[in-house]
Amino acid sequence: MPNIHDQSDRKVIFFHAPQSRSGGTLALLEELDADYELHLLNLKQGEQRQSSYLAINPMGKVPAILHRDALVTEQPAVFLYMADLYPEARLAPSIGDPLRGPYVRWLVYYGSSFEPAIVDRSQKRAPVPPMTSPYGGWDDVMNTIHAQLAKGPYLLGERFTAADVLWGGALHWTTLFNLVPDTPDIRAYIERVITRPAMQRAAARDEAFVAQQAA
Amino acid sequence: MPNIHDQSDRKVIFFHAPQSRSGGTLALLEELDADYELHLLNLKQGEQRQSSYLAINPMGKVPAILHRDALVTEQPAVFLYMADLYPEARLAPSIGDPLRGPYVRWLVYYGSSFEPAIVDRSQKRAPVPPMTSPYGGWDDVMNTIHAQLAKGPYLLGERFTAADVLWGGALHWTTLFNLVPDTPDIRAYIERVITRPAMQRAAARDEAFVAQQAA
Ligand SMILES: N[C@@H](CCC(=O)N[C@@H](CS)C(=O)NCC(=O)O)C(=O)O
Ligand SMILES: N[C@@H](CCC(=O)N[C@@H](CS)C(=O)NCC(=O)O)C(=O)O
Repeated sequence: MPNIHDQSDRKVIFFHAPQSRSGGTLALLEELDADYELHLLNLKQGEQRQSSYLAINPMGKVPAILHRDALVTEQPAVFLYMADLYPEARLAPSIGDPLRGPYVRWLVYYGSSFEPAIVDRSQKRAPVPPMTSPYGGWDDVMNTIHAQLAKGPYLLGERFTAADVLWGGALHWTTLFNLVPDTPDIRAYIERVITRPAMQRAAARDEAFVAQQAA
Repeated sequence: MPNIHDQSDRKVIFFHAPQSRSGGTLALLEELDADYELHLLNLKQGEQRQSSYLAINPMGKVPAILHRDALVTEQPAVFLYMADLYPEARLAPSIGDPLRGPYVRWLVYYGSSFEPAIVDRSQKRAPVPPMTSPYGGWDDVMNTIHAQLAKGPYLLGERFTAADVLWGGALHWTTLFNLVPDTPDIRAYIERVITRPAMQRAAARDEAFVAQQAA
């Protein structure tokens, strides 16, 4: 890992929009105590689809980070990348650790299975045949999550990882929107995660950003 | 990386179904010259949804791998995990390498953006509003892929990585099914990837598996 101890070399530029999918990354950066320069985008004003931002991320999406001019997008990728960049925060089981596989699986599962399932559900779309669907059916996803949380207290067991920052935040907003049922096991997990000081700090910052953009 | 040089410790069990999404993993394992024990599932006979397999992967999906009893599912996760397990194959830019971020981004983008776009397109579903959709719109995805391939010859430039195994294979079948337009840049890229000896070996093995299951 070249330069891993040179703080300046780890500084990233973080493209964020308040109350959006990039809120999880904001929380992660706080958990990592990472060095970052924030660029706020106003989604309502369409700043994410202006040419200056499309030149950075052609998908016009947040979150996005730039590290030494390299672009990283997609929440699970941003989480994997940033948590590996700050090994001293111990939010990423390292390569060779028995938890590395489950860790990578659960981060990727968020984007490859959970989000498609949530989008279909929130939009009340007719489901695709289960064999074709990347997530099978809604119940498959819910059962898989419940079975995993039963291992607790965290997603991978005893160890709190970056996967919890992603999943704790995601289950928080999806239960708020009544997309995921607010069962006792899910509620206890969410509370365990969102009451952490760094998570609270990120939530407070995000509220300040909302006010700033409304002004 | 404990035990990384102990070959027996790197052996995985690979759950595969012929002519399915797990074909990419078969190709990757050949590219890595990995040590694996194959478990074939017959999707037509519903073996993936029998209780014995659900006890391993509650999603009832392939690909899945077990390494030292730990489960890894989701194509991008399987690719990330396996390529990191075989650093000597040099298919994964290591942590600290300037290509690591783009590498993780493109693997995850496959599952978080490309697959959802392909599923919507193949099923002729009405698109979700672009701001809500994880991939925006179909054109955003195509433009992003074309712009990236223009850097060539491989997805990340000069260096062939595990991301090419995933993308070369995926573009191969999606152009065959007329989901992705067979433009000269895409065609040249596909050929560059699928003509590799390990890719050909995997394709031949997969055809033999089809015959075996039909017998
Ligand atoms: N696949 C992306 C999805 C990101 C995404 O859709 N972000 C939304 C914010 S909630 C966005 O930027 N929307 C603005 C737009 O599409 O115009 C990821 O995993 O990060
Ligand atoms: N999100 C999963 C999707 C895997 C998937 O959908 N695999 C299909 C094979 S093409 C499958 O196992 N289908 C069997 C079934 O759902 O019954 C991944 O990225 O690996």
